[in-house]
Amino acid sequence: MSHHHTAPKLASRIAETSARHSLFEEEIRKLPVPVCSVFLGETGSIRPTAFTETDAVLQSKDHERTAEVFPLTVGKNRNVVLVATPPQTAEKVTGKRVAVLFSGGPAAGGHNVLAGLKAVLGKHNTLLGIKKGPKGLLNGDLFEITCRQTETIVNTGGFDFLGTDRTKIKTPEQFEKVKQAVLKNKLDGLIIIGGDDSNTNGAFIAEYLEREGIKCSVIGIPKTIDGDLAVGKYLPISFGFDTASKIFSELVGNLTQDAASAVKYWHFVKLMGRTASKITLEVALQTKPAVALISEEVAEKNMSLDDIVNYVVDTITDRRLRGINHGVVLVPEGLVEFIPEMRTLIQELNKVLAEYEADIKDLPTLKNKQDFIYPRLSPQSAQLMASLPEEIEEMLILDRDEHGNVKVSQIETEKLLIDKIRYRVSEIKRHPEKFFGKGQGKFEATPEQIEKIKSLSLSTQSHFLGYEGRCGKPTPFDAAFTFNLGLTAGSLVLAGKTGYMAVVTDFDRGGRALALPLSGLITGELRKGKPEEVIEKSLVELSSPSFKVFAENREKWAHEDLFSSPGPIQHWGPTSKQIPISVALDQGYADYKNFKLGEERKIEFE
Amino acid sequence: MSHHHTAPKLASRIAETSARHSLFEEEIRKLPVPVCSVFLGETGSIRPTAFTETDAVLQSKDHERTAEVFPLTVGKNRNVVLVATPPQTAEKVTGKRVAVLFSGGPAAGGHNVLAGLKAVLGKHNTLLGIKKGPKGLLNGDLFEITCRQTETIVNTGGFDFLGTDRTKIKTPEQFEKVKQAVLKNKLDGLIIIGGDDSNTNGAFIAEYLEREGIKCSVIGIPKTIDGDLAVGKYLPISFGFDTASKIFSELVGNLTQDAASAVKYWHFVKLMGRTASKITLEVALQTKPAVALISEEVAEKNMSLDDIVNYVVDTITDRRLRGINHGVVLVPEGLVEFIPEMRTLIQELNKVLAEYEADIKDLPTLKNKQDFIYPRLSPQSAQLMASLPEEIEEMLILDRDEHGNVKVSQIETEKLLIDKIRYRVSEIKRHPEKFFGKGQGKFEATPEQIEKIKSLSLSTQSHFLGYEGRCGKPTPFDAAFTFNLGLTAGSLVLAGKTGYMAVVTDFDRGGRALALPLSGLITGELRKGKPEEVIEKSLVELSSPSFKVFAENREKWAHEDLFSSPGPIQHWGPTSKQIPISVALDQGYADYKNFKLGEERKIEFE
Repeated sequence: MSHHHTAPKLASRIAETSARHSLFEEEIRKLPVPVCSVFLGETGSIRPTAFTETDAVLQSKDHERTAEVFPLTVGKNRNVVLVATPPQTAEKVTGKRVAVLFSGGPAAGGHNVLAGLKAVLGKHNTLLGIKKGPKGLLNGDLFEITCRQTETIVNTGGFDFLGTDRTKIKTPEQFEKVKQAVLKNKLDGLIIIGGDDSNTNGAFIAEYLEREGIKCSVIGIPKTIDGDLAVGKYLPISFGFDTASKIFSELVGNLTQDAASAVKYWHFVKLMGRTASKITLEVALQTKPAVALISEEVAEKNMSLDDIVNYVVDTITDRRLRGINHGVVLVPEGLVEFIPEMRTLIQELNKVLAEYEADIKDLPTLKNKQDFIYPRLSPQSAQLMASLPEEIEEMLILDRDEHGNVKVSQIETEKLLIDKIRYRVSEIKRHPEKFFGKGQGKFEATPEQIEKIKSLSLSTQSHFLGYEGRCGKPTPFDAAFTFNLGLTAGSLVLAGKTGYMAVVTDFDRGGRALALPLSGLITGELRKGKPEEVIEKSLVELSSPSFKVFAENREKWAHEDLFSSPGPIQHWGPTSKQIPISVALDQGYADYKNFKLGEERKIEFE
Repeated sequence: MSHHHTAPKLASRIAETSARHSLFEEEIRKLPVPVCSVFLGETGSIRPTAFTETDAVLQSKDHERTAEVFPLTVGKNRNVVLVATPPQTAEKVTGKRVAVLFSGGPAAGGHNVLAGLKAVLGKHNTLLGIKKGPKGLLNGDLFEITCRQTETIVNTGGFDFLGTDRTKIKTPEQFEKVKQAVLKNKLDGLIIIGGDDSNTNGAFIAEYLEREGIKCSVIGIPKTIDGDLAVGKYLPISFGFDTASKIFSELVGNLTQDAASAVKYWHFVKLMGRTASKITLEVALQTKPAVALISEEVAEKNMSLDDIVNYVVDTITDRRLRGINHGVVLVPEGLVEFIPEMRTLIQELNKVLAEYEADIKDLPTLKNKQDFIYPRLSPQSAQLMASLPEEIEEMLILDRDEHGNVKVSQIETEKLLIDKIRYRVSEIKRHPEKFFGKGQGKFEATPEQIEKIKSLSLSTQSHFLGYEGRCGKPTPFDAAFTFNLGLTAGSLVLAGKTGYMAVVTDFDRGGRALALPLSGLITGELRKGKPEEVIEKSLVELSSPSFKVFAENREKWAHEDLFSSPGPIQHWGPTSKQIPISVALDQGYADYKNFKLGEERKIEFE
């Protein structure tokens, strides 16, 4: 019954060898990008801005120490926030050479930072790409980015045009290599596109080059899907967060609908996002699932693992009594580290494993190792560890990172929860008398209700959403945001500024380009017992409007199926201009439906 | 530094309690839907069609036996394919009562089948929904679907408006209950939206009701994301396939880009799709990954598990030598069943586990069970089982389905492959002399190349994409296809036809609505040793244009990063009208960019 005409033309079009040429990729390259008005000259073309000091001074809680660590930078910038302003002279800066690199995990919009840089530098300055991240800088792996190449990558996802890596520049030898690369390539500017650690690195490089008397602007760009690099009203969010959280929201929205269609599954979804639960909060606001756990709340309320398990099981049984035998539970990637008792266990384990490294390595079986470790933990931690599923315990003991520590991010939290939740449900079914009736901690239920719980069969599915979200095609918001970040960073270099992070804010009113002094964002933090300079991570604040809206509504969402499916990211049509709900709430915007970042321009590179 | 204006209006909009009201869901409900011209009357409004016999007769390979199983149906329809034609009379059929149910796993577009039915039945006939699938039919759980409800679900995803289940109607008592439901609800029509098994069920119900002298049209609708329900030029594909394969393509496209950005990961992605590799083939044509395994080819070429492992490892090492240390490997869900030696092992295991059920259950440890089972397998199977990772072996022995069989679909094939691939790579690194040099099975390599392979560090990530794709919002294609399937099915009922599957074909030229006699699709198949009536699954044919295009190009895609990222499904804009590439190729269409299924109509229900 088959019917096989060959269609040679179509077949050969599919076979075409040039990469990244799906219909979609061809079309998004043609899409215009909004440009903040400050970057548009009188003729309507893109031009670099000047920068003016504002009244705002950034003062981290550790600013005195920071001023000692970055004496030259702070001496010069006084931690004052700058704002982009129209240039005062028509004279063009020319002949500058600017290099750019990606650092850390990919995030959507990176290529548009490059496009913005290329557009603002124009044909009389040179943009160089550094291959494979900071390591490429150390190895001097630079090349000139052409207009043709920029046309190919504009509006596309990924960091694949340059590649990225996670090398940290720390040693004197590494700093020396940076200097050599700057001198050899005659760089006037170095743009670091990265997260909190990479921007901290940028601050150190800026100070170092200043000290060495080398005039090269070092500018950071706030990238991370996790959303933990954010600075109040100055930087509502880092780029990539919108795309990643929308991809996850699409998939979680589909799963909420799948649960309600098949009427039998509980989907447990772990969401990437490292320490902060910002992605989970945004996805919860977008999709309204039965349960969303927020790490920061768990820590604040000092919840134990059992508290969390009981909270989820209460929701499961409550829904069961309402005739709903399905749902979705969102689990932030960093949860385990925020459960105080788990944190204690991990700290104790790290200590024991470091102290007795040789002994433990020598013991042949897992059982031997357990027998050795248990007596060396506190009774509370030993009891907690013994209550964990075998695979998790094995992982805690055997899998170590390069510093010998437990690989917390590798813990399959969603599976740990499922395991303990299933156990708890089976306990309730076997011993209903312990859970129902009168008395403390029990709840009243009719005999029919108890029968309903006893006949509960819990079907679970676990999911981890992460890598799929890092390399999505930038949403129209991320595409616009990053292009304007590129324009800001390029303008900063041409204005001779160094040690700043280029940011854009006021997403609802045309966009405002600012420069935040990196030294003003840095604070001291104990890392492995030693104070270290870091940019403070922006976590979910329980007092924020976004958390409050979630907290005030979650009970309703738990009791009934009130989920929303926000659908796939749209690049055309009436829903394509959304920004994250949590950002709109926390910034006090009137809506999240339409960002405004200036007039749309078809971007051309000449 | 935080900045917390509350925005009460926005907060309360987020909190709104009505479900499924994201901006996206609100807007897609307003989208017009194309209607095949045969369903449009002279005034341009939707009206039911008549049906005319074509010259085509469906003849399954088992048609003589089928004629005996379905004597009344075949006697009446002679397995002739019908085509929808404009009605010959202006007289309207009124007062009919038609019930509809979902069966099996969700697929995108189900709600638009309901919308199509509602539109074509109009206000003078009644559409009833059956809750929670076939079980709801047996329980008589029916309700009238209103215009208001239809407006709410049009163009939305999921099966949640009715729910679904997997009950099979097999026993005389069940058939009796169907009869009672038909009589009690005075049904003139019963629409079953389901896959191959559900449509087979539909054929039996049609024959049964005919035999009982009850005049009620039974009509099937071809649903399944797997794409294995397809009938040459008559039914290019089932509904839901386009949406699911596009969702998976979006995510796989992101992963190919992630691999090329982070330049260190090999992503192994298992794709839902049951037995057939159709989804994997479509995703491969969309994304051009380094490796895509096709089960049907593995079976055809009698490949062993080691052959598959070596094929992937050869690609990994070849890319390594070309300086590419990353890639994506697609693994179809059903792969294990298509590896001849694995199939033999599973059959032997099923036999041993059935024969010695009590003994094996009685043995306390996994080791005891293994010791008992190994001597009872053939040496080849025992050796193969011993080579599997511990978890897979444990799963094969301990996890059984309700018939006591190995749960093949639960085998984590992607992890099995990763495990064996890692082992093989480490073997090559430890004993390069066995793999490089002159001689059979070895390949020549320079000393630098050997060093490059020896320094290969393989970072792998495993993914399973499945549930996320079942409940996506229907693509414009699936939305149009299903609406017209609903129009076809409703017309068939009003025309008094029974025992047909409503289908639509010719996606590139305005659409053609047909009715395929279910009895003509059914063949006999051995299931658990007994012949059983089934609709033959449509698998990937190695002679098909779609497979050929893949096979001719995959080597290029393996050698270089030539991936495409087809991006998220678009509901507006220039890329929103695509159909699956594999369908366009196999149907001989000139392109896959724009389907044509008639004139777009804003659907209104009165």
